[in-house]
Amino acid sequence: MNVILDLCVVPMGVGVSISKYVAVCQEIFQRVGLKTQLHAYGTNVEGEWDTVFAAVKECHEQIHQMGAPRITTTIKMGTRVDRLQSIEDKVNSVLEHLNL
Amino acid sequence: MNVILDLCVVPMGVGVSISKYVAVCQEIFQRVGLKTQLHAYGTNVEGEWDTVFAAVKECHEQIHQMGAPRITTTIKMGTRVDRLQSIEDKVNSVLEHLNL
Amino acid sequence: MNVILDLCVVPMGVGVSISKYVAVCQEIFQRVGLKTQLHAYGTNVEGEWDTVFAAVKECHEQIHQMGAPRITTTIKMGTRVDRLQSIEDKVNSVLEHLNL
Amino acid sequence: MNVILDLCVVPMGVGVSISKYVAVCQEIFQRVGLKTQLHAYGTNVEGEWDTVFAAVKECHEQIHQMGAPRITTTIKMGTRVDRLQSIEDKVNSVLEHLNL
Repeated sequence: MNVILDLCVVPMGVGVSISKYVAVCQEIFQRVGLKTQLHAYGTNVEGEWDTVFAAVKECHEQIHQMGAPRITTTIKMGTRVDRLQSIEDKVNSVLEHLNL
Repeated sequence: MNVILDLCVVPMGVGVSISKYVAVCQEIFQRVGLKTQLHAYGTNVEGEWDTVFAAVKECHEQIHQMGAPRITTTIKMGTRVDRLQSIEDKVNSVLEHLNL
Repeated sequence: MNVILDLCVVPMGVGVSISKYVAVCQEIFQRVGLKTQLHAYGTNVEGEWDTVFAAVKECHEQIHQMGAPRITTTIKMGTRVDRLQSIEDKVNSVLEHLNL
Repeated sequence: MNVILDLCVVPMGVGVSISKYVAVCQEIFQRVGLKTQLHAYGTNVEGEWDTVFAAVKECHEQIHQMGAPRITTTIKMGTRVDRLQSIEDKVNSVLEHLNL
């Protein structure tokens, strides 16, 4: 089962700047070969369910190891069985409706 | 690693009423022995990371088997390594600050 | 237009304990007469759109005044024009599907 | 008070394809002059709080007028009083930590 997931990880108790923790997540996703798209409030990730969630777990584990005592994360995610759909497909299907 | 998770599963392409799908998720969590708390916009779940996410995956699988072609899910989740905290602890720590 | 909203406010740069900030939000909602239901990962709020969002704005303003330099908030919210639905209705419609 | 917001609007009861509704939201944000960045699981919006939330309300109103009986929306949003930060700033602060 494929999943497209939007991940927003917020380490707590480490001050207001969290970009280095987000960068570590990017590196985890790249290392395991998952396609990602960074945006200003999270990261889109696309891949097989188990691979994606193993990577999300590693994000939490590694951020704790970096010293964050607490993490709160927001995920939006979608699965569909009617057809295959990629990150690009989702964006393009919106763009097709816009009169640009 | 323990996780407290708030799950909101939205099957798409099945009309406006989705309560029977949410109920199936409740049954999955209960069957695997996870503590849950239902509210009006999701379900709090507490347990060991792998157990919780195996159950979340089963929710998606079973809702697709019930006929939903597409599912979009929102998750909020928290882990902490500084101390143990339960669903009740989180609610109580807010209530202690209220002058009820 | 009525809205049912689930609010999860996370002040950043104030350490790991955020319950006093969540309690302030509870007090704001109560003062303006909005029905709320606290749970372990947020608060359900129900009411007229403009009243609800004025209160959400006041939550952010007041938490900043309490000293939090940064806030990240997750909201889930629903509107419907086919029928009226309360917080209790949503919970009950799930419970009706469970064999308790 | 400035806000950076990530909006994900999901009309229910209209089938599995919702891109035309997302496109309408894009047009609303552009009409009122708000900066947006579309991604595969939502849209980043940046602007003054009241302007942004007036536009979010108009999204719900217009999608209902297009025939959707029910809408569920997920929002992540951030405010900060320590410094100004744009959508580009947030992305760049992560990229600076990556060894690309």
